[in-house]
Amino acid sequence: MNGAESLVRTLVKGGVNVCFTNPGTSEMHFVAALDKVDGMRCVLGLFEGVVSGAADGYARMTGTPASTLLHLGPGLGNALANLHNAKKAATPIVNIVGEHATYHIKHDAPLTADIEGIAGPVSHWVKTSPDAKSVATDGAAAIAAASAAPGQIATLILPADTAWNDADGVADVPEIAGRGTVSDAAVTEAATALRSGEPTLLLLTGQALYQDPLDLAGGIAAKMGADVMSQGSNARLQRGAGRVPVLRIPYVVEQALDVLKDYKHIILVGASVPVAFFAYPNTPSFLAPEGCKFHHLAGIADDMVDALEQLADAVGAKRSDAMRQAPGRPGRPSGALTPDSIAAALGATMPENAIVSDESVSTGRGFYPLTAGAPPHCWLNNMGGSIGLGMPLATGAAVACPDRKVVCLEGDGSGMYTLQSLWTQAREGLDVTTLIFANHSYNILKGELAKVGAGNPGRKALDMMDLSRPDLDWLMLARGMGVDGARVTSADELNKALDAGFATSGPYVIEVML
Amino acid sequence: MNGAESLVRTLVKGGVNVCFTNPGTSEMHFVAALDKVDGMRCVLGLFEGVVSGAADGYARMTGTPASTLLHLGPGLGNALANLHNAKKAATPIVNIVGEHATYHIKHDAPLTADIEGIAGPVSHWVKTSPDAKSVATDGAAAIAAASAAPGQIATLILPADTAWNDADGVADVPEIAGRGTVSDAAVTEAATALRSGEPTLLLLTGQALYQDPLDLAGGIAAKMGADVMSQGSNARLQRGAGRVPVLRIPYVVEQALDVLKDYKHIILVGASVPVAFFAYPNTPSFLAPEGCKFHHLAGIADDMVDALEQLADAVGAKRSDAMRQAPGRPGRPSGALTPDSIAAALGATMPENAIVSDESVSTGRGFYPLTAGAPPHCWLNNMGGSIGLGMPLATGAAVACPDRKVVCLEGDGSGMYTLQSLWTQAREGLDVTTLIFANHSYNILKGELAKVGAGNPGRKALDMMDLSRPDLDWLMLARGMGVDGARVTSADELNKALDAGFATSGPYVIEVML
Repeated sequence: MNGAESLVRTLVKGGVNVCFTNPGTSEMHFVAALDKVDGMRCVLGLFEGVVSGAADGYARMTGTPASTLLHLGPGLGNALANLHNAKKAATPIVNIVGEHATYHIKHDAPLTADIEGIAGPVSHWVKTSPDAKSVATDGAAAIAAASAAPGQIATLILPADTAWNDADGVADVPEIAGRGTVSDAAVTEAATALRSGEPTLLLLTGQALYQDPLDLAGGIAAKMGADVMSQGSNARLQRGAGRVPVLRIPYVVEQALDVLKDYKHIILVGASVPVAFFAYPNTPSFLAPEGCKFHHLAGIADDMVDALEQLADAVGAKRSDAMRQAPGRPGRPSGALTPDSIAAALGATMPENAIVSDESVSTGRGFYPLTAGAPPHCWLNNMGGSIGLGMPLATGAAVACPDRKVVCLEGDGSGMYTLQSLWTQAREGLDVTTLIFANHSYNILKGELAKVGAGNPGRKALDMMDLSRPDLDWLMLARGMGVDGARVTSADELNKALDAGFATSGPYVIEVML
Repeated sequence: MNGAESLVRTLVKGGVNVCFTNPGTSEMHFVAALDKVDGMRCVLGLFEGVVSGAADGYARMTGTPASTLLHLGPGLGNALANLHNAKKAATPIVNIVGEHATYHIKHDAPLTADIEGIAGPVSHWVKTSPDAKSVATDGAAAIAAASAAPGQIATLILPADTAWNDADGVADVPEIAGRGTVSDAAVTEAATALRSGEPTLLLLTGQALYQDPLDLAGGIAAKMGADVMSQGSNARLQRGAGRVPVLRIPYVVEQALDVLKDYKHIILVGASVPVAFFAYPNTPSFLAPEGCKFHHLAGIADDMVDALEQLADAVGAKRSDAMRQAPGRPGRPSGALTPDSIAAALGATMPENAIVSDESVSTGRGFYPLTAGAPPHCWLNNMGGSIGLGMPLATGAAVACPDRKVVCLEGDGSGMYTLQSLWTQAREGLDVTTLIFANHSYNILKGELAKVGAGNPGRKALDMMDLSRPDLDWLMLARGMGVDGARVTSADELNKALDAGFATSGPYVIEVML
C-alpha cells in the first residue's frame, strides 16, 4: 500500500466519505487510490473555489468534514476565499494539498510556492507530511483537527513522493477535542440578567440555531420576556413553521443600531459582540447601545445545548414555553419583481426541508419575513463576506442531502465568481434550484459608496459597479454548462419558474430580471 | 485631497496608468478618486483571477506596471494564483489591496483576515499603509519596488481610513533598482566554453528573448557553432520571420533529456539550470546530462543586452552573423483537426505583430515549428504553471497594445478557471481571438497519471480528468458574456473561423472541437 492509498483508507475509516477536488499531477496517486478504496465519493469542480465552497456546504449539513484535494500552492490559492468563508463559519474541512516530491521542491520548478505560508491565514492546523509512512497518521490527525469543536480547517500538505512511496497502513483518528462546558458563573450571570426586568436579548449563532437549542432559547425568552435574535450571518439556521422564529441583526449599520438600541443586556450564545461588517466614517464599529452589558454564556466552541439547558433550569423555563412560528405561506405574488414579491414567491412555493444557500446580497435582505411560515427549512449564510460562496455552498449541501431540495439565492455579481459550480451540479445531478438576481450591478456598492462618504460617483466610478455593457445572459451561461432554466420578468413568471425548478430533480437556473 | 486621491495621483505621476480591479466597500474612495484624476484607465474584472492575470499581460507588453485594486484578503486570495504566475514571470505589478479601517480590524468582522500573510508568498514587497499621510509615499515606494529589475510584485495594503482621511499630497517615485552588470569573469568563462569546441548551448529567458539580445545570441551561436534555446516557458519571446529562431526545452522529461543530452556546456542567460516541471518516480529532476557544465552569464535581473554584447565582443561575433528565420507560412490545412493542422492554420493566418497568449497545454506543444515563419509576433507563456492565466493574460496584453491582434490559445479545462475574462474583453472591446481547444478533458493528466506510475486508472480516477458529462458549450458561455464566435470541427472550418476572428476588431471565440 502506498502513501496515497493509506491516506484514502484512513479518511474513509475516519468517516470522511466525500472528496471535492480539482487534482493535478502531484495528486495522481491519490486519484488512482480512489479506484482501489470503496467508500470515497469524489466530486470534480472545474475551479477550486467550487471545491472549497462545496466542502463548506457539505459539512454544514452533515456536521462531519469532507476532504478537498488541491493542486499545490496555486490550487490552494484558488480555494482560499471560500476556505476563508468556511473558517469564519467554523466548518470542519480536511483540506488536502499536493506538493512537489520532497526532493524536487528545492529546484524551484514553476509551481513551487510557500504552501504552508498560503495555508496559514485560512487554516487552524497545517502540516506537511515528511514521508509516506507518516501520511496515514497525519491524515488521521487532520481529521481530528478538523473535527475539533466547533469545526476547523485542517490543511494537510502531501509531497508527491509521500503518496507514491510505501506506507505502513491505516491510522485511527486520535481523540477529538469536544465542545467546552460553560461555567456555573456564566449561567448565573445570564440568569441574573434575565431576571433584571431590563430589556434583554439572547444573541445566538452556530449550534444555538439548530432546532433543539432554539427551542430552549425560545422557552427562556418567552418565560423571561426576553428576545431572541441571531447574528447577521449564520452557518445554519433551522427555521420555518413550528420552529422558534429568529430575527437577524440587519447588515445596514443604522438599522442594526435601531434594532439593538433598547437592550440593557445581551446574552451571547455562540455569538460575538455585534460589530459592523465594515467601518464607515462617523458611524460606530460597535452596534450595541452604550451601557449595554454583555454576558458571555457560551462561546462558539462550547456546548450550547447544555448551556441553554442549564440556563433554562436556572430560570425555570421549558422548551414548551417557546413561541413558535405559525405555519402560513403568503399568496402567490403577481406584478413586478421586487424584493418583496420574490420573497413572497419563495414563501409560497418553497418545499418542505429545503436548504437555502443565501448569497442574495442586496436583493435578499428582506426575504426572512415572507418565508418565516414556510415549511421547516435550513438557511445558510456566507459567514466570511467573500462573495462567490452561494453556488458552491449549494453544491456541497446537495451532495450532503440528496433527498432535500436546495434553493440557491445568488446575486449576479457574486454568482460570476464561481459559476463553474453549475457544471458540477449537472454532472452529479444535484437537486439545486438557483435564482440569479440579475440587477446587472454590484448594487450593494452603490449604497456603500455613499455611506463611506465618497461623494457623487462619476462615470468611471459607476462603471466599476456596473455589470451591464454587455449584459450577462445567465441562461446561456447555465446551458453552456449543461443546466437548463428560465428567465423571468414578472412575479407570475417567477412563481411558474419556481414550480418548474422545484419539480425538477436536478439543477435548474432562474434568471430573475431586476 | 484624501489618501485615495493622493495615491491615484501618485500612481499616474509614476507612470501607472491602468488599474485592473474588482473593488468593494473598502476601496470605494479609491474608485471615487478615479473620477477626479485624469490619466488612469480602470478596467473591471468579474473575478480577481482576471484582474491579476490581466495586470501580468499588460506589464509583459509595456514593461511598466499596472496596478490592481483588490478587496481585502479574500479578493487577494482570488488573485493569488495569477499573482504566483506573474511572480514567476518577473512581471512588475503594483498590487493594491483594501483593508478594514485601522481601528476596525481588531473587531474581527467577517472579512477580516491576515492580508500580509496571504500576500507574502506571492509578493516581493509588502506594506500596510499606517495612515492617510503615508499613502502617497507608500504608493511611490510600491511603484519603485514593482519596477525593480527584473520586475516584482509589490503589494500595498490600504486600510479604508487611510483612503478617506486627509493626505499631504503626491509623492515621487524613489530610485528604482536597475539591472545588474555581469562580471568580466562571467563573460570570460562563457567565452571559454564557446571556444572549447565542445557542444555548447546558450539557454535564454526573460529579456534575452527580445529581438535585439536575441540577435546578439544568434550571432554568437552562429559564429561559434553553438545552439540557442529557451526555457520551456518564457514571459515574452519575439519570434517569426526575420528573427532568430529559438527552440524551447520540451515539457516532457524524456524529450527534454534527449534534446539536451549532447551538451557539454550550457551558458545561462536569464535562465535557471533546467529542471523538470514535476518530479516522477525514476526520472531525474535535472534535465542536463551528467558532466555538463553550467556557466552563469547573466541572472534574470541582470542586463542581458550588455552581457550578450560583451560576450559577442569577446568571441568576435556580430548581430549580423545570426541565422534568421525565413518568412514562410504553411499552406492552409484541410481535413481533421489535429495539433499539426491547428498549428498550420495558425501559421497560415496569424496577422503581423500578433501577440500569442499560450495556455494550450497538451494541444499546443507542437505549435512552434509551423508558426515559426509567420510574420513577426510575440509569444507569451504561463511561467508559474497555475492554469487559468491564458485568457486574463490576453486581456491585459490587449489593453496594453490596442493596435495589435491578440491570439489566445486556451485549453478548455484551463479556460474554465477564468472564463470571466471574456466579459471584460467584451466591455473594453479588446481585440482578442480566443481558440478553445475542446478535448473535453484534462488531457495532460491522463499522461501524467501514467508517468507517475499510478497504474491503470479506473472509472473514478478517469472521471476526475474528464470534462464531459455534460460537455461544455463554449459558444454559449461566450455569448452569455457578450462575445460571439464559431465552433469548428475541421481544419477548413478553423481556417475560416480564424479569418473571421482576425477580421473582427473585438473579442471572438473559436471552439476547436477535438
